[in-house]
Amino acid sequence: MEFIEFITIPKLDGVILHSPFQEPIDGTLCITGHHLILSTRKENVQELWLLIQAIDAIEKKQQPNAQQNSGSIILKCKDLRQLQLDIPSSYDFQTVYTSIERLANLERQELLYPFFYRPMYNILEDGYTLFRPETEYSKLLASDEWRISYVNQNFSVCRSYNSVLVVPKCIDDNTLIAAASFREGGRFPLLSYRCDNGAVLMRCSQPLTSNSNKRCRSDERILNSILGPYKKGYIIDTRSPGLINHYKSKGGGTEPDGHYPQWNKIFKNLDKLVKCDGSVLEHFSKLIDACNDTSITTEKWLSRLESSHWLTHVQNVLSTACLVAQCLDKDEASVLVHGSSGLDSTLLVTSVAQVILNPDCRTVRGLQALIEREWLQAGHPFQTRHSNFCYSNGKTKGQQPTFLLFLDCIHQLHYQFPYSFEFTTQILILIFENSYFSNFGTFMGNNECERQEMKLSKTTTSFWSYLNRPDVITKFLNPMYEPNKTAIWPSIAPVSLQLWSDLYLRWIINPKYQKSAKEKMHQLIERDKDLRSKVIKMRKQLIDLQKELQSLSVENEDELDD
Amino acid sequence: MEFIEFITIPKLDGVILHSPFQEPIDGTLCITGHHLILSTRKENVQELWLLIQAIDAIEKKQQPNAQQNSGSIILKCKDLRQLQLDIPSSYDFQTVYTSIERLANLERQELLYPFFYRPMYNILEDGYTLFRPETEYSKLLASDEWRISYVNQNFSVCRSYNSVLVVPKCIDDNTLIAAASFREGGRFPLLSYRCDNGAVLMRCSQPLTSNSNKRCRSDERILNSILGPYKKGYIIDTRSPGLINHYKSKGGGTEPDGHYPQWNKIFKNLDKLVKCDGSVLEHFSKLIDACNDTSITTEKWLSRLESSHWLTHVQNVLSTACLVAQCLDKDEASVLVHGSSGLDSTLLVTSVAQVILNPDCRTVRGLQALIEREWLQAGHPFQTRHSNFCYSNGKTKGQQPTFLLFLDCIHQLHYQFPYSFEFTTQILILIFENSYFSNFGTFMGNNECERQEMKLSKTTTSFWSYLNRPDVITKFLNPMYEPNKTAIWPSIAPVSLQLWSDLYLRWIINPKYQKSAKEKMHQLIERDKDLRSKVIKMRKQLIDLQKELQSLSVENEDELDD
Repeated sequence: MEFIEFITIPKLDGVILHSPFQEPIDGTLCITGHHLILSTRKENVQELWLLIQAIDAIEKKQQPNAQQNSGSIILKCKDLRQLQLDIPSSYDFQTVYTSIERLANLERQELLYPFFYRPMYNILEDGYTLFRPETEYSKLLASDEWRISYVNQNFSVCRSYNSVLVVPKCIDDNTLIAAASFREGGRFPLLSYRCDNGAVLMRCSQPLTSNSNKRCRSDERILNSILGPYKKGYIIDTRSPGLINHYKSKGGGTEPDGHYPQWNKIFKNLDKLVKCDGSVLEHFSKLIDACNDTSITTEKWLSRLESSHWLTHVQNVLSTACLVAQCLDKDEASVLVHGSSGLDSTLLVTSVAQVILNPDCRTVRGLQALIEREWLQAGHPFQTRHSNFCYSNGKTKGQQPTFLLFLDCIHQLHYQFPYSFEFTTQILILIFENSYFSNFGTFMGNNECERQEMKLSKTTTSFWSYLNRPDVITKFLNPMYEPNKTAIWPSIAPVSLQLWSDLYLRWIINPKYQKSAKEKMHQLIERDKDLRSKVIKMRKQLIDLQKELQSLSVENEDELDD
Repeated sequence: MEFIEFITIPKLDGVILHSPFQEPIDGTLCITGHHLILSTRKENVQELWLLIQAIDAIEKKQQPNAQQNSGSIILKCKDLRQLQLDIPSSYDFQTVYTSIERLANLERQELLYPFFYRPMYNILEDGYTLFRPETEYSKLLASDEWRISYVNQNFSVCRSYNSVLVVPKCIDDNTLIAAASFREGGRFPLLSYRCDNGAVLMRCSQPLTSNSNKRCRSDERILNSILGPYKKGYIIDTRSPGLINHYKSKGGGTEPDGHYPQWNKIFKNLDKLVKCDGSVLEHFSKLIDACNDTSITTEKWLSRLESSHWLTHVQNVLSTACLVAQCLDKDEASVLVHGSSGLDSTLLVTSVAQVILNPDCRTVRGLQALIEREWLQAGHPFQTRHSNFCYSNGKTKGQQPTFLLFLDCIHQLHYQFPYSFEFTTQILILIFENSYFSNFGTFMGNNECERQEMKLSKTTTSFWSYLNRPDVITKFLNPMYEPNKTAIWPSIAPVSLQLWSDLYLRWIINPKYQKSAKEKMHQLIERDKDLRSKVIKMRKQLIDLQKELQSLSVENEDELDD
């Protein structure tokens, strides 16, 4: 392995680890190619076993009043945890710091842990083949309206789309190619979801109209093909008209009204100019800074929560997704959603709308399928967006917690409808972690094209393969689940939105008591099952005994009769 | 009844009622001396049956564009609910408004509903005699250290104290009388709670030192008697030194250090000058205004929550109560708590400290006993503090939601330790309501003296008599209760404090889904009980059957043997 050059010091004794909710422990620090390990050789002491890829930022803290030679390394992790390692000598301090820093910033994808991870269990279902469009959309494909297209097989039409696409049957591949040239990044209008009432949810990127009123008949044909004559549809642009003008000057724009007469356009204010308003990541960093500030007063806490704007982002997404869901469900009208690139707020809106409308998305398998369809196969650039997290100083371009915003929206829906989800919100936290650092290859690369180039499905294990193992997935099942076939319409009033404290405050508020509430519920439900099976067994025993008794009595009577 | 003069219109048809989470209903409005009734004569429609005393503010709303003759009356209630009555004609509108307004503002206590309410059930235990100091402190009184004093039998020593007092055995009544003249309102140091380790919690009002260093040997003797020689105690003054200077100029002050050498003084910042900072009531009004503003944005919501300072008040009380509890429990040192009058923040601190330390206070009976000891018998002026609520414009002097702040603190503890309380937080909401408007006499008057003058225990029913009926109290039992004999140390970090949305947002957020979560838990626990008793019964049946079978087999064998 080539890591050896990075690891100047593979082992160091006398290191003290400080981690949240735990007494400091001291032991031997081992640095391997992919893990930091703190081993104590004591029983009943929880040791540290940290994937180095989980480290977002690493800081030095030289204690001014401490021993001359010692110092501390602060590790700020992508699961929001902050760890501190006290290193006994100054020489070791520097080498440990440098080793960890180099390993945490590996540039070469092929050195990442998923390529080295070997599962110690049999894979029952390969997560990489579990959610193919052919099977996911099999019901639609059996109808007369939709077909599979392989026009993007080598990713030449649209690099961020999947190789297998579901398109209207009446649209040929040449029309798709022509429409792709009219949309940013080739993201022509593509099926996202079809309601039982026939209304269709589509998504794409912005049209490249510039300031002209350029039209594209292929694009119009695709959109009109899903409406049918005389029907109305809605184009929901996630940007404000002002922002669209800004994009027009850069070649983008919006559908010219005259050429889309059947479509009503609605502008929402989801996307903002980063320069003016700060990015979602900056807002999220502010939130986490406030969460981690333990010296904060109540007033300051609320005002910093406010100025982080995080809950406003959550509210905006939920509000736009509700609007989309209402158009589809109540108006029975088809909807096209896009912003500029179609890679972020567009996917947020189409995926959250599906959780609201489609009860399947609220099951364990449906959630995975939704993430596959609307995020992975839809080309959300996970590698770029998740290259670093909120602690990192040298923020790389394109980082955004868009996907976390999606998980937070599901958390809000879950909070308001605690029975309608097959899973607990703990599964969302696990997915969040694995989307940032993982043993698995699922969230690597920016799109299907890059994942194929890396041959991930051959060289790494799928996260879904791990998650769907019976002994893993049962830990995330909601004991209170009651399948609910209807749409769930959330309240989006500010007073109804909750800070996701289970996640953002997970290392601040000790979850001991909250957790045991859930454990208690689990215990009760388990005991309920046990008792019920016991009752059934005893009832059977009783019947058997009564029969035996009867036959004995009959024998007796017979004998008496004799 | 003399109400007849107030009720100019006892009945009116065609009134439409708008209430939260309900479709408008129309029916006949009946105004009785104590109730507003809206009767629909339809099945399955929830009718209104509102105690007029529950109305905090009444407003007229003349619709500009509606029929010339119609108008609406807005009733803002002390349970935070807002109701609207649409009145069909303008003449009736004015008379209905005037009738309700007069009835809602009855000056004469003897006309209030508790004097007219007749319970339709047998009273098993009279709540008025349930919590006598003789029985509440029976364990202490059996020791050699404490005795009952009747020095205040006619309330001449301290008008706001109870007639029966528990005092140190070594202190005679004359010493108490002398100490009373040294403290505001005669509130000399009195026992609040004694820990198992011997440390004692006392409370009183400020000493009347003015700017001099006046001393009172009787006061010093009382305090030193509970310390014993060489032991240290803490005086926790709920005011800042600056505020104490303000009170000195008005005759009040703080214990002169030289005369209390065994006592360490700690100043907290619980009390504020109303002129500079606004009163707790004003802050609470701001909070409720924000809660009721349904057009609010997320940013505005958080900033208005912040500027209400409500959670800061909650945090301050919890923090001071924790300090007191720590002195008692960890330092094993006795503590004296006071502010100025000893009627508000003093009681907040001593009562919340007891909930933290004393597991008894977390039971249904213990909560009632605590409210009796530390609020009712301790002379918290409920009638003055609760004469109006946050909606009322013409605020009368002395109104403050101090007791609500106490209930909110228990709610915070309950949230952090959901298993340690025998009751659910719903009981706190019921107590809150009855402390403001009630069928019962328990929360009437400002102190024991006034309650005796009104002969409440003879002429009204006790709230505790109602609450402790088996079919009532069972609704408020916490199915997850697990008696916890230890102190519960809450986190008082701002991120750990929760807005009490079950109460403050009760008419804003529809509790449909949250409620069913609790119902489900209840169901599960009920089924668990059922199943377990079924298993026991079946096990018995099985044993009986097996015995019968055995005896039959023996008979058979016997017969065979024959």
